[in-house]
Amino acid sequence: MSVFTAVTEDDLARWLGDYAVGRLVSFEGIAAGVQNSNFFVTTTLGRYVLTLFETVARADLPYYLHLTAHLAHHGLPVPAPVADRNNEYLGTLSGRPAALVRRLSGRWLTDPTPAHCTRVGAMLAGLHLAGQSYGRRQPHPRGAQWRAEVAERVLPHVGAEDAELLRTELAWQAQQDFDALPQGVIHADLFRDNVLWDGELIGGVIDFYFAGTDTLLFDLAVTVNDWCTMADGSLDAARSAALLEAYGDERAYTEHERRLWPAALRAAALRFWLSRIEDLHLPRSGEMVQVKDPNEYRRILVARIDGEARLPDRP
Amino acid sequence: MSVFTAVTEDDLARWLGDYAVGRLVSFEGIAAGVQNSNFFVTTTLGRYVLTLFETVARADLPYYLHLTAHLAHHGLPVPAPVADRNNEYLGTLSGRPAALVRRLSGRWLTDPTPAHCTRVGAMLAGLHLAGQSYGRRQPHPRGAQWRAEVAERVLPHVGAEDAELLRTELAWQAQQDFDALPQGVIHADLFRDNVLWDGELIGGVIDFYFAGTDTLLFDLAVTVNDWCTMADGSLDAARSAALLEAYGDERAYTEHERRLWPAALRAAALRFWLSRIEDLHLPRSGEMVQVKDPNEYRRILVARIDGEARLPDRP
Repeated sequence: MSVFTAVTEDDLARWLGDYAVGRLVSFEGIAAGVQNSNFFVTTTLGRYVLTLFETVARADLPYYLHLTAHLAHHGLPVPAPVADRNNEYLGTLSGRPAALVRRLSGRWLTDPTPAHCTRVGAMLAGLHLAGQSYGRRQPHPRGAQWRAEVAERVLPHVGAEDAELLRTELAWQAQQDFDALPQGVIHADLFRDNVLWDGELIGGVIDFYFAGTDTLLFDLAVTVNDWCTMADGSLDAARSAALLEAYGDERAYTEHERRLWPAALRAAALRFWLSRIEDLHLPRSGEMVQVKDPNEYRRILVARIDGEARLPDRP
Repeated sequence: MSVFTAVTEDDLARWLGDYAVGRLVSFEGIAAGVQNSNFFVTTTLGRYVLTLFETVARADLPYYLHLTAHLAHHGLPVPAPVADRNNEYLGTLSGRPAALVRRLSGRWLTDPTPAHCTRVGAMLAGLHLAGQSYGRRQPHPRGAQWRAEVAERVLPHVGAEDAELLRTELAWQAQQDFDALPQGVIHADLFRDNVLWDGELIGGVIDFYFAGTDTLLFDLAVTVNDWCTMADGSLDAARSAALLEAYGDERAYTEHERRLWPAALRAAALRFWLSRIEDLHLPRSGEMVQVKDPNEYRRILVARIDGEARLPDRP
């Protein structure tokens, strides 16, 4: 259960009075989600999702809200925030920063086919292209600096073999010329549970709370590591080719991106191995984190070190 | 058939390259619509509608495109335009001004129940409330001045009885104090064929090309005259009450609006009687107008003159 803050019907009905979305018909808490309290809200005019922000600082919220508004403005299926009658996205409800967003249709998919991966690759490229004209900037909060810092914090908590792998890998990654790669706004967490499928189409991409500016190739690697990996951690060739070709159709790869693709896959694997180790050994108080197995991403990292991934040739 | 301008697959695929909506999968002309050429467009990322504007002047289009963007921004189900990579809504395709909008789901309804009319009343109020913060202005193109001018043009073409009714009604309406009524952006054409139903909810409100600033009460009267009228032209009490109560729940009626409600119904009836007479007797060349029976709105006008409509009392 992930509703951390209760909302009363009276308070919500009154709060909706600041919007032009009609009267409250019904609402219910949403079980999924670990960072915020979310509610499905139905009014006389439509279906929305109410989010009470539990952990993101209020000052950081405009970046995310305006980003999804910008992407929706460019035709992408993201949870666009609804402006109130004063043209504001962010309000306060039950003592928390609160926003209303459009409810998207669709459901998660656990076993994607290459055809699904084609859609995901095209969608990620669409996000990257539309993000180029987004005016606000913040650094990707799980970038190279974060990875180095978290590694220091978790090293005392892991076994000798893991510590050695971590140190060696960080040192190797520090020598790669990631800085010269094309940058932009990245989603940074485009996992299967952040994409809603409406039949064969993507009905929604959600959860932009790790977004920020970083290399586009890193975002692609995060996405491929989740959508195109087999149980042993190695890449599924068909799904990976489908996703990468669809992405490359929209935004042509640079030569430097081709060279650094294996390194990007390793950096992306390391990022999630580190955060999972941290969630396991150093949980933050007051945050309800769903602890996921760190070894899944250790396996992926090792498979990427051993593997020979490459971006598809030009058509 | 209402596709006036042809689009080739190659041209459309190239044109979509200016957007971040993925690759063209398929497209087809839409039969409905009398003013523009419309196409359903499916890309790898979603479903859209392409409009080539055939009759609206290019200079007037930003008012409509930004209006629907503004209303969507406030959470209302309208066809929001998609911005291209340069953040522009309006492009050129096949030599016509062209825009891509989000495709809405739902279908028209010919026989609304009071429950449907409740939704329509709430939606119209939502449009009026959200419209209050819209920054651009243009006069409603079918306002009192247009009605007086068109009456002059059509008078020579109608019979003596109709001419007498027209003259008397215009003279009576000119004496009503419409100017002191609350004003704002009105849709001005919220007929049944401009509302798409997605089950019990309104999935979309379309066709804003008569929108402009005028009295909100006039818009309400246009809507009631279409949604709540029986075959003999008189008001259906249950549907009318449902629509007006739902609207009044969102925006309380002023005393002046209560006094002028019968007059607003007559002005709204006259507006469509006039435009239908004009379409019948003075069709504009180059425009494919679906000629509708003027007598339907003559009957409604006469029924409103004879009737005793009133806005619902406060709850």
